[in-house]
Amino acid sequence: MAEFVYGHWPIMEALRAGRRNIEQLLITDTVEEKGVVAEIMSTAQEKGVNVRRVARRIIDDLAEGANHQNMVLRVAGYPYVEPDAILSLAESKGEKPFILLLDLLKDPQNVGSLMRVADAVGVHGIILQERRGVGVTPSVVSASSGAVEHLQVAQVTNLAQTMRDLKEKDVWMVGLDIGPNTPPIDKQDLNMAIGIVLGSEGEGMRRLVRDTCDLLFCLPMRGNVASLNVATVGSVALYTAWRARGWQGWAHA
Amino acid sequence: MAEFVYGHWPIMEALRAGRRNIEQLLITDTVEEKGVVAEIMSTAQEKGVNVRRVARRIIDDLAEGANHQNMVLRVAGYPYVEPDAILSLAESKGEKPFILLLDLLKDPQNVGSLMRVADAVGVHGIILQERRGVGVTPSVVSASSGAVEHLQVAQVTNLAQTMRDLKEKDVWMVGLDIGPNTPPIDKQDLNMAIGIVLGSEGEGMRRLVRDTCDLLFCLPMRGNVASLNVATVGSVALYTAWRARGWQGWAHA
Repeated sequence: MAEFVYGHWPIMEALRAGRRNIEQLLITDTVEEKGVVAEIMSTAQEKGVNVRRVARRIIDDLAEGANHQNMVLRVAGYPYVEPDAILSLAESKGEKPFILLLDLLKDPQNVGSLMRVADAVGVHGIILQERRGVGVTPSVVSASSGAVEHLQVAQVTNLAQTMRDLKEKDVWMVGLDIGPNTPPIDKQDLNMAIGIVLGSEGEGMRRLVRDTCDLLFCLPMRGNVASLNVATVGSVALYTAWRARGWQGWAHA
Repeated sequence: MAEFVYGHWPIMEALRAGRRNIEQLLITDTVEEKGVVAEIMSTAQEKGVNVRRVARRIIDDLAEGANHQNMVLRVAGYPYVEPDAILSLAESKGEKPFILLLDLLKDPQNVGSLMRVADAVGVHGIILQERRGVGVTPSVVSASSGAVEHLQVAQVTNLAQTMRDLKEKDVWMVGLDIGPNTPPIDKQDLNMAIGIVLGSEGEGMRRLVRDTCDLLFCLPMRGNVASLNVATVGSVALYTAWRARGWQGWAHA
């Protein structure tokens, strides 16, 4: 089914990545062809994508009220991969697998932010629990600033089973958890084949997912409010892991 | 001038912190007194705050269209402190100063998110450049989930001058920057008296602020999009610094 990716950077990254079947770029008839708009239009033309000018209210409708920045890209659904493709990518790069697993996150903003950070630290892929959790919708693409167009994302029906499969392939499952008796995140060397597991907003990991983890860690907190957004927790965890891996793949490392 | 803090947690934290002059709690006439609403109402009563039921459209107006969760708290403006109060707080805790400095950030969501993290890692205070930058508005209170009600926040007219004053008091100014030849954030021991300096969205630190830093660091990035939100960068930097300080003040450290 067709979807409408909206906004400058999401559209630019979808065009650059070229992984989706792209049907058409729709731009409001009044916006001037200059700056980033001109850049997007010329990228579309290079890629052989039809560009059409239409009335703003059509773009408003197709973007369903989101902040579309005068354009939508009509594309086929997000190209999910199988978890094995994520392991193959790690192998082809000669790197120990580095995976992010999300258990039923609900907020597209959180999922998108985490994907942007996942791209920045070079994870090989992201695994999402299907149903009830957020998939890669246009709002997730937008919140990721388009980063998800370049990432390998798998959607699985049984996250705990996928975790067991990964464990058999020697990938350690590291869950971020709160609560007493959970050591802080820097207490274990994370320079190994790992999957970092994050639970949903408010509720955390489901029990079976939590029990399937090899290790549990927390992000320490002091202060008065003592709660953090899951995207913040995940961002710090991903950076802690990448740092433990010696900033592998960084141009200046 | 009176302001209207909105939303459950921001109102609860403003009541708990009790640092502002609180005039009245306004609640829509239809919402039931149970759960967190009942908790907030009883906290207000304990603190001697008048509670009044009004029509929803009044709350809508006072919250200026924000997601108010059926209540607003009429309060005096945010109680800013002087930078010296931040140093005194560090001293009274017997800790090396740990400060966050924001140079002209524009987005209340980013400023609020950073304040929530600042609370979680136990910074002694936050220093904001006045004018053109965001101050502690009700949307910042909301984005911080109320954490800012407990924090020491100073607003200064000349951030570079304040940085020089702090340097004279042996607080190291550490700027987060991008660009070549900037070492990664883990290359220096951050277990010292520090102020972490973050620049504005898109533009980074102003030149004079950047030049006034003792040290510059970057957050490495690989991947295809290669840009991160300033709140993400700042969150990782604050956690890196707190970790270097041995999770000082954490109940389980």
